[in-house]
Amino acid sequence: MTDPAKPAADGGSPHPRQLVRAEIISVGTEHLLGQIVDTNATFLCTVLADLGIAVYFRSTVGDNVRRVQDVFLHALDRADLILSTGGLGPTDDDLTVAAVAEALALPIERHEEAWAHIQEFFRKRNRPLSSQQVKQAMLPRGARMIPNPRGSAPGVIIEHHGKTLIFTPGVPREMKGMVQDSIVPYLRERGLAGREVIRSRVLRITGLGESGVEDRLRDLMRSSVNPTIAPYAHTGECHVRLTARGTEAEVESLLDRTEGAARERLGPAIYSAGEATLEEVVARALTAKRVSVAVAESCTAGLLGHRLATPAGASAFLDGGIITYSNAAKQRWLDVGADVLERHGAVSVEAARAMAEAVRTQAGTDIGIATTGIAGPTGATAEKPIGLVYIALAHSEGTDVREVRYGTEPGRSGVRYLASQSALDMIRLHLLR
Amino acid sequence: MTDPAKPAADGGSPHPRQLVRAEIISVGTEHLLGQIVDTNATFLCTVLADLGIAVYFRSTVGDNVRRVQDVFLHALDRADLILSTGGLGPTDDDLTVAAVAEALALPIERHEEAWAHIQEFFRKRNRPLSSQQVKQAMLPRGARMIPNPRGSAPGVIIEHHGKTLIFTPGVPREMKGMVQDSIVPYLRERGLAGREVIRSRVLRITGLGESGVEDRLRDLMRSSVNPTIAPYAHTGECHVRLTARGTEAEVESLLDRTEGAARERLGPAIYSAGEATLEEVVARALTAKRVSVAVAESCTAGLLGHRLATPAGASAFLDGGIITYSNAAKQRWLDVGADVLERHGAVSVEAARAMAEAVRTQAGTDIGIATTGIAGPTGATAEKPIGLVYIALAHSEGTDVREVRYGTEPGRSGVRYLASQSALDMIRLHLLR
Repeated sequence: MTDPAKPAADGGSPHPRQLVRAEIISVGTEHLLGQIVDTNATFLCTVLADLGIAVYFRSTVGDNVRRVQDVFLHALDRADLILSTGGLGPTDDDLTVAAVAEALALPIERHEEAWAHIQEFFRKRNRPLSSQQVKQAMLPRGARMIPNPRGSAPGVIIEHHGKTLIFTPGVPREMKGMVQDSIVPYLRERGLAGREVIRSRVLRITGLGESGVEDRLRDLMRSSVNPTIAPYAHTGECHVRLTARGTEAEVESLLDRTEGAARERLGPAIYSAGEATLEEVVARALTAKRVSVAVAESCTAGLLGHRLATPAGASAFLDGGIITYSNAAKQRWLDVGADVLERHGAVSVEAARAMAEAVRTQAGTDIGIATTGIAGPTGATAEKPIGLVYIALAHSEGTDVREVRYGTEPGRSGVRYLASQSALDMIRLHLLR
Repeated sequence: MTDPAKPAADGGSPHPRQLVRAEIISVGTEHLLGQIVDTNATFLCTVLADLGIAVYFRSTVGDNVRRVQDVFLHALDRADLILSTGGLGPTDDDLTVAAVAEALALPIERHEEAWAHIQEFFRKRNRPLSSQQVKQAMLPRGARMIPNPRGSAPGVIIEHHGKTLIFTPGVPREMKGMVQDSIVPYLRERGLAGREVIRSRVLRITGLGESGVEDRLRDLMRSSVNPTIAPYAHTGECHVRLTARGTEAEVESLLDRTEGAARERLGPAIYSAGEATLEEVVARALTAKRVSVAVAESCTAGLLGHRLATPAGASAFLDGGIITYSNAAKQRWLDVGADVLERHGAVSVEAARAMAEAVRTQAGTDIGIATTGIAGPTGATAEKPIGLVYIALAHSEGTDVREVRYGTEPGRSGVRYLASQSALDMIRLHLLR
């Protein structure tokens, strides 16, 4: 993809001196052994982009004094601001602050405010304070402490020869809280936030594959430089990320304009522009239109009911449903006739229709929605391959049945998820009528 | 945590010259904007650990020629092996190989095998070959191509002054396939794999919180240096990672011994030692013991049925079930008496028991399992707080009911997931009797 940070870095910005160059450093051997996925660094990147601070590099290093020092010294050569996570705990392996202080020749001393915080943290929780704990209060002379209401390790800010180093704990919840409560305000106050921010908006699309989305957006993707437009394929949906660069006022109108152009090309396939999930969009529409729903699930076996119940307030529209994984259950609970099962099979238009209509009638809801299909890996026949799913939506004016063929590629879990996705989307589109 | 790479790096290994130092480089501005989580680097770390190759650094850089060159040249200073992902596509922003070739002063030329691969890839898919595509065949002189059966971009290996640079695409599926099919064999053949590997085994525990696990393992965690023992909390379960260092033969027996010691302390709370999920363990036990099951779900609304149906072959034991999200559904489908609902409420021992027994009787299964609880954010009363859940398991000898209180901390989704987790674990423990 294009590099939105590039024009500014290469002198294209009208205010090149204002651009702060940041580097993110993740400390912890667990990263280098592949034992955890570094979502902390991802989070910090989004926060800095939103502040208009350019991140040019990310580095990861293990719990080793010399290598930690190498990484920080190298980062100081090429960045104005260093934001690190990890290695602030009380054990011997937590060495980030001490290693960096040594590299910068800063004496370490007990920081009284930090020490008071740690003592208070343990007192409140009735936990004994071990002798190791004082280590977390040993900060370089002149450092500031960042409060950590969620854990024992305070964060640390060092201002050093015009550069800023910020240390946060590796526990995501503690780090994120610290960033939101203290670090973002600090960066703004210090004037480190840029005039131009980088902001993204995600258009969420379902019922249309990635290549279908690309076909419809091709002209827009070619012509639009700011925002950039990048589609990402996910299971059952495609996300189109619009990324704009400009002042706070500019980015919103740039994003609005491009969203409008995308909507002209994609229509109702866009189910949300923002964070709302398909479950949430469907739940809102059902609630707003006072439409009640019951489910009848074979291949999805409860996944559809589960997803409908995920948003808070689902009791406004969800009555319940029947999971008929076996044929016996289809006959017993949904009265799917033996003749239907014998003549058409459990995976058929007829079975799906009977299931949706029966559950709607029994529950007395406005709509009944049913899924039946072959998730695999076994159960396929010559006419009914893996990935074949029928979805039926029974409503006051009739019953709509959709046949979908997902193939073998998504695998068993993929087919089941895709079936629930198509069912939710059928409800969404039904409510748009 | 301790740094298993440290002793060898600092000269503690009997074969220090054998230890290959690797660096992983992720290329792509999307990483620096926080638009994707870098699971590629995590994967590569686990592969290299398993080969006994030490990863000391990971670096991430955007799609910028000069900065890509800086990162690779710096990595060549400190590593013997560089493994990179990203920037191998056909567009102008895909510049990894060309940038590195320029930095190493290697001429770029069309690699005939790579070009044949690309042409073949497009021919097979009936897709037109654009003029840009030849770029993916432009490799540094003397480079080897790594086949990519899953995409158009071939991988590249450059051997340069005793160091090895390997380039893979950023698409995880393509990269992983290449690593497994070609790169691991190449590294072994070249003798780059270490004599000592680092291998992990994960003990999966449920029904016991992280602090409970730590309490029981404290002595073992203190005394065991190899393997190291590290607990990680997840929703509804705790994973204890054992990480051993040694020869192939040594690590397995080290892991076996420590797993045995952990089992003495944790007993049946360990539901698996390896990759098997709770769903899979429960499915295997139900299948092996020929026990059939039906579900009756209120707060979980289908999640339990969904999870039971996740493993392939679920039709061997899963009949189906009833989702009774509303009280009306509980009365209509499970015959939960109005008196029970009025006197005890839908979230009660009595309601859970009635649900489990009714679904078992209706379905004619060996066991019936029911959930009813308050997921929140609304619906709580003074006596029945958010997070209160009753789980009932009806079987041939009676009905067991469990009350659990998850509190508000997990949130709505967390409570619902935890309820399904406890229900699965009740089935597992029932089958162990």
